[in-house]
Amino acid sequence: MAAGFFGPVRLVGVIGSDCPFDLAQVFAGRDVDLTGLEIRKNSKTFRWVGSYSENMDNRTTDYIELNVLAEEPPGVPEGFSDSKFVFLANTAPNLQLKLLNQIDRPVFVAADTMDFWIEGHPEDLKKLIKKINCLIINEDEARLLTAEHNLIKAAEKILDIGTEVVVIKKGESGSIICAGGERFVLPAFPAAEVKDPTGAGDSFAGGLMGYLAQVGRTDFESLKQALAYGTVAASFTIADFSLAGLTSINKADIDRRLETLRKLTQF
Amino acid sequence: MAAGFFGPVRLVGVIGSDCPFDLAQVFAGRDVDLTGLEIRKNSKTFRWVGSYSENMDNRTTDYIELNVLAEEPPGVPEGFSDSKFVFLANTAPNLQLKLLNQIDRPVFVAADTMDFWIEGHPEDLKKLIKKINCLIINEDEARLLTAEHNLIKAAEKILDIGTEVVVIKKGESGSIICAGGERFVLPAFPAAEVKDPTGAGDSFAGGLMGYLAQVGRTDFESLKQALAYGTVAASFTIADFSLAGLTSINKADIDRRLETLRKLTQF
Repeated sequence: MAAGFFGPVRLVGVIGSDCPFDLAQVFAGRDVDLTGLEIRKNSKTFRWVGSYSENMDNRTTDYIELNVLAEEPPGVPEGFSDSKFVFLANTAPNLQLKLLNQIDRPVFVAADTMDFWIEGHPEDLKKLIKKINCLIINEDEARLLTAEHNLIKAAEKILDIGTEVVVIKKGESGSIICAGGERFVLPAFPAAEVKDPTGAGDSFAGGLMGYLAQVGRTDFESLKQALAYGTVAASFTIADFSLAGLTSINKADIDRRLETLRKLTQF
Repeated sequence: MAAGFFGPVRLVGVIGSDCPFDLAQVFAGRDVDLTGLEIRKNSKTFRWVGSYSENMDNRTTDYIELNVLAEEPPGVPEGFSDSKFVFLANTAPNLQLKLLNQIDRPVFVAADTMDFWIEGHPEDLKKLIKKINCLIINEDEARLLTAEHNLIKAAEKILDIGTEVVVIKKGESGSIICAGGERFVLPAFPAAEVKDPTGAGDSFAGGLMGYLAQVGRTDFESLKQALAYGTVAASFTIADFSLAGLTSINKADIDRRLETLRKLTQF
């Protein structure tokens, strides 16, 4: 949804027949190709249940039902194999790799992950990191993965595993991007109202990848701008539940807030 | 020490005869007037003992010996009463008020405080806040003072108590400034090495106030620049113990790092 503001999106994923949403309806009128969405009969949709601390930043996983994610991954449709900008959303790293292998010659691949895979499948995750261009990860996950508390050092350790760009998300404290000896730090959009941070990380990644795909560049200046667009996309998501924060706005709202963010952070 | 990079400083304070440092020696060659420094015989210097968590950000007070701070405050020398930019460093709010009353017509008064006074003397603190132009406070203190977790809302509540500018320090997550409906957010300088954060807050305030006094303005653009100078001053302090991070640099180092901070944060 967040990436769709910037250009055409191809979605690959699998849900169970229990999914309460009609995703074709949800994405109606948007340039999002759902050919890669598989609705698997007799399977159940992935579920995550978590709790947020009072500051809406620290969250704990109460339980996960992998359900359909523990089964075979969806296939990448043939027409999608020429995709150039690829975001591997959070799932098992070996599934992320299987999906990636179905893309012919991607230009820029980013992946997300979470504590569950860092703790349970660290070797798979390291294999994945060597294959992608960018890891997008939150601060607790970065610390867990590297056993390094300082985030600049943690980012460098992740680069050492074998990727080119590391983005560390710090919730209401903003984000950091490290690549090729360069660094950039950006505060979060200062919001007085946070309704639900669920999906903020995916919206952040969507805005970031959407912008990169739109401009077709991944130099550091473009990455900085992409981080700002990701920050703005996330700021709309957390202001409401589910997708409501994104479905109620248009690209002009995003661009306006980017200018506000610039004004709020530039001296 | 931090303010001294920007112009002449007048210091008012009281220590006991047990102080292990010769402050005249420490400030030798710097434009810091120590006329207001009282060394009180038979009194003991204020002591704070605290512990930092692994992230060097959260600190807990293990114990405080108020010692000389529980006695009469030092007097402001007659020659200091025409001071225009005044920083009331952390001490009892009623002492801060007594000191402020000895300044004739200050232009901009900022004050620091801490959990100890917020919990123990909230009414005195509120009286002080109404008399100053700016409260400089860390995020935990802001939450304690306002019972509001969201920092933007906390800042607005502090403005409502009756001051014009609120600066909230967030350690390695940077700082926020709110004034007259305007906001500005700045990340901390991204440092891979933090030796000792003790004094970071005072260095931050010193850099901020030093810059404002130097330019003689307190409009929002100047406050933004001042926040950046405070951020840079603090970044030098935390890189070493005691004053070593500041005594080993000069104003050109500060200006250079300000440009680096600009480069690291502007998009």
